[in-house]
Amino acid sequence: MDIITIIGLTAAFLTTVSSLPQVIKTIRLKETRDISFWMWTFLSVGIFLWLIYGLYKKDLPIILANGISLFLVLIVLGLKIKYK
Amino acid sequence: MDIITIIGLTAAFLTTVSSLPQVIKTIRLKETRDISFWMWTFLSVGIFLWLIYGLYKKDLPIILANGISLFLVLIVLGLKIKYK
Repeated sequence: MDIITIIGLTAAFLTTVSSLPQVIKTIRLKETRDISFWMWTFLSVGIFLWLIYGLYKKDLPIILANGISLFLVLIVLGLKIKYK
Repeated sequence: MDIITIIGLTAAFLTTVSSLPQVIKTIRLKETRDISFWMWTFLSVGIFLWLIYGLYKKDLPIILANGISLFLVLIVLGLKIKYK
């Protein structure tokens, strides 16, 4: 595997799992006042559309990355709605 | 332009600008306690690597989307560090 593929995969991994620390923090803290509702709404719709795009194009990396992202982002959005 | 290209562009637009409401909220509120430091750190490094990937591949949509995202994400990370 060449260096640029490794950079791309690392980029995809980091952006995909980036919401996980927020999920953990919000479950522990039960506070979401400082978190923007609109950010997580835009992110949920955007990632959902990426997933549709990936499914249509039959592009496995796009499907996988955005499937995992959507799961995590929807948890944060749900917690934001629950604890607002 | 076909429907799937429009879906892809809408997805790219929404995920790219999604941090903007968080930037505005944090500037107003001056509070970042509920925001995860590690989320914004992972996101900054991940998007920076996407930018390197796009520059290497000379892929303008990847460069543009991640250039704008990185700018917004670094503002939130900076505010998180400033107001923690």
